[in-house]
Amino acid sequence: MLIIKRRINFYDCDPAGILFYGNIFFFCHSAYEELVKSFQLEFDYWLNEEFIVPIIKSAADYLKPLKHGDELTIELSTTDIRESSFELNYKCSNQSGDVCAEVNTVHVLIDKKTWQKRANS
Amino acid sequence: MLIIKRRINFYDCDPAGILFYGNIFFFCHSAYEELVKSFQLEFDYWLNEEFIVPIIKSAADYLKPLKHGDELTIELSTTDIRESSFELNYKCSNQSGDVCAEVNTVHVLIDKKTWQKRANS
Amino acid sequence: MLIIKRRINFYDCDPAGILFYGNIFFFCHSAYEELVKSFQLEFDYWLNEEFIVPIIKSAADYLKPLKHGDELTIELSTTDIRESSFELNYKCSNQSGDVCAEVNTVHVLIDKKTWQKRANS
Amino acid sequence: MLIIKRRINFYDCDPAGILFYGNIFFFCHSAYEELVKSFQLEFDYWLNEEFIVPIIKSAADYLKPLKHGDELTIELSTTDIRESSFELNYKCSNQSGDVCAEVNTVHVLIDKKTWQKRANS
Repeated sequence: MLIIKRRINFYDCDPAGILFYGNIFFFCHSAYEELVKSFQLEFDYWLNEEFIVPIIKSAADYLKPLKHGDELTIELSTTDIRESSFELNYKCSNQSGDVCAEVNTVHVLIDKKTWQKRANS
Repeated sequence: MLIIKRRINFYDCDPAGILFYGNIFFFCHSAYEELVKSFQLEFDYWLNEEFIVPIIKSAADYLKPLKHGDELTIELSTTDIRESSFELNYKCSNQSGDVCAEVNTVHVLIDKKTWQKRANS
Repeated sequence: MLIIKRRINFYDCDPAGILFYGNIFFFCHSAYEELVKSFQLEFDYWLNEEFIVPIIKSAADYLKPLKHGDELTIELSTTDIRESSFELNYKCSNQSGDVCAEVNTVHVLIDKKTWQKRANS
Repeated sequence: MLIIKRRINFYDCDPAGILFYGNIFFFCHSAYEELVKSFQLEFDYWLNEEFIVPIIKSAADYLKPLKHGDELTIELSTTDIRESSFELNYKCSNQSGDVCAEVNTVHVLIDKKTWQKRANS
């Protein structure tokens, strides 16, 4: 598991004063990038000749509004690691410890040569 | 049903050259805004004293990559209209007619005075 | 000159209810992309082996606030086309014809082989 | 002066692999928000009945490209504080210490009752 903290900025929120629902995915991806960075891989995970790892599914539940100034804590955990795909779960809480959003993304490993699913090495 | 067309811009795409998955929700919300506009409501749906309509759930399937320059067609349809909530479905196709993403959002009507769910009028 | 029209979306605006100042550059770039498209170039202007055209300077004056629902008209004109650079000016008006923002960007043509400025062909 | 550090995320960059020029303003605003927070004001600077502080001018020089994974350091300094306006300067460097962008924003204090410029208190 990996935990990141981020501040909700003014520009992340809409005229209703709350985080625009689509913006939660940027915060979550930022956690995912930190996770990949923590692996200290010897190749460029994000841009290489061998494979790409597109997101094929996303789902989010918005339980409580996040507001400008809130300190967001995202707990990222990995589930369901299969041969050519994996899922990431993000629990997004505010500074009071309330879970405000739960996000899930499904990632699949695609071989750039064959454009087929590829086994994790 | 309502249909909008939008161009995928350079800045909507990431270094892999494809639409960043979180950006699809902005295009879909743009269609939702056109839908609300088409109702020619006599009150301000987006900002008023009576109610708000937060999104409590979103889900997306990414079937084919969308790329810079693609002409996106979004078909927005409404399903599952209940007393205090409704769902919107967005079928997102490219200029070849391929469905590239399917998105679903669940909206709930909240009374600003009681902070309870409120019946559609 | 090229003219585009765009709607200001809910998510483009901040909790003060007006277009976040940084978002104007996305609308302007969208006009720039339409301009390039209108040239019907035989090569890929945006991604090719020969050159890139980075923006080295931007400036904006915000004269009147733009709001959710406003219909934005952007008039794009080209000025100061020199051997290896050019400037774009964007006049951004609302549906009442008021000029709400004036934006200027400076673009420079860089040869990918030498990483020097390159003459326009 | 205030210093913040931010990572350039994958989604901040465009298909050319560099930070989209309009995205620098979001990073800079994030520094501005931290500055305001550091003042520990007893009122809500961002949303209140008395005044607003719109940005009326922005300017940016892009000196070197910022890339995915770069660690951005922003040094925010205040200049030219006048009765009803102030300017902010942001020096944006990468992890090698190279200044990659210099940004300037002009902010003006507007009285919400009279819609005139208002003296700083």
